[in-house]
Amino acid sequence: MAKRVGVLLSGCGVKDGAEIQEAALTLLALDQRGAQAVCCAPDCDFEVIDHVTGKPAGERRNVLRESARISRGEIRDVAHVTPADLDALVMPGGFGAAKNLCGFATQGADCAVNPAVEKLVAGMLAARKPIGAICIAPALLARIAGKHGVAARLTIGNDAGTARTIEAMGARHEACPVREFVVDREHKIVSTPAYMLGRGPAEVFEGIRKLVDEVLSLA
Amino acid sequence: MAKRVGVLLSGCGVKDGAEIQEAALTLLALDQRGAQAVCCAPDCDFEVIDHVTGKPAGERRNVLRESARISRGEIRDVAHVTPADLDALVMPGGFGAAKNLCGFATQGADCAVNPAVEKLVAGMLAARKPIGAICIAPALLARIAGKHGVAARLTIGNDAGTARTIEAMGARHEACPVREFVVDREHKIVSTPAYMLGRGPAEVFEGIRKLVDEVLSLA
Repeated sequence: MAKRVGVLLSGCGVKDGAEIQEAALTLLALDQRGAQAVCCAPDCDFEVIDHVTGKPAGERRNVLRESARISRGEIRDVAHVTPADLDALVMPGGFGAAKNLCGFATQGADCAVNPAVEKLVAGMLAARKPIGAICIAPALLARIAGKHGVAARLTIGNDAGTARTIEAMGARHEACPVREFVVDREHKIVSTPAYMLGRGPAEVFEGIRKLVDEVLSLA
Repeated sequence: MAKRVGVLLSGCGVKDGAEIQEAALTLLALDQRGAQAVCCAPDCDFEVIDHVTGKPAGERRNVLRESARISRGEIRDVAHVTPADLDALVMPGGFGAAKNLCGFATQGADCAVNPAVEKLVAGMLAARKPIGAICIAPALLARIAGKHGVAARLTIGNDAGTARTIEAMGARHEACPVREFVVDREHKIVSTPAYMLGRGPAEVFEGIRKLVDEVLSLA
């Protein structure tokens, strides 16, 4: 039977939501391996950033509804997804992972986490089901793991400031190039830098494809 | 030197814009071949469809600004892109191609076309520079080609009604499976059905990857 892999989205667009290319390439890698993607997102609002100017657009949208654009309408409210529904979970990056799923982008190491997201991710950790975290999503994962006594080993590439904040949350950071991944076999956590370092989709996909393969092999 | 390939976007989301996965996979295939993507879109409004319910959201957004979500902010107004800037052009699908770039979805064979889009596409045809059209985008291409006396040979998969309308616009339709493409060498037009037939990103990517290879070989 196909492995069911949750794909946790945080909107639709790198500057205020899920990084679209990372999310689409995650879906590609999963489908190429015959896994079944279960896209999900929290039902909450976020502040829209104009992707041409990079500035706030003075508008709010809904994370769940915008995330559904990436998954062609097939999406579940993360509050209704449990670890029993999944064999693994993958979290693409984008500012949404650090602004809509948790407050990492503005609050740093003590950031608040969306309760439904925390419940699912902590449940996956407790069930020892594999989690893949892409780009900045390892910061979210480090925060949840730290709150639940898990010292995760992971990467967000090589940004020193972000790495320090991640270590302040109780994780161990390891530098990693874009085409590679870091695996924490003890906690079944896999991470890759993607657009934290990537200059284009080809090298980003190489890291994501390897991450997906590793996640599936741990599932 | 890297080939410069225009990627004509029509928003961000299958139900009211560019099909996100098709667009992202086009960018992946281009980058894997070392081509330089030049993302562009028209600066006009469109009607937002809620991607969870499939119903109108009672809101309008801007095609150019939403398209920039897919391309991480790097985007040009199609009105300022000329055939001299490009070695080839690729048009992903999604309802945006049939609702925002032209009126095909509601007006059929006699549909209006966005003037800036028509100018660029007709200019590429006249310059005999290759054009790749994905999913429903061949309907847009058939309309522009027909208006300019070019009898394009292309595919939108196997939907009989859409194929008839495409032939009414002066093109010849050829049925094609999702993992393959149709090439009209005379007019340098390449097309693949993608999500007109596809059940997931893996098979859609196979068609898009082959289309991109063919477009680049013609450029």
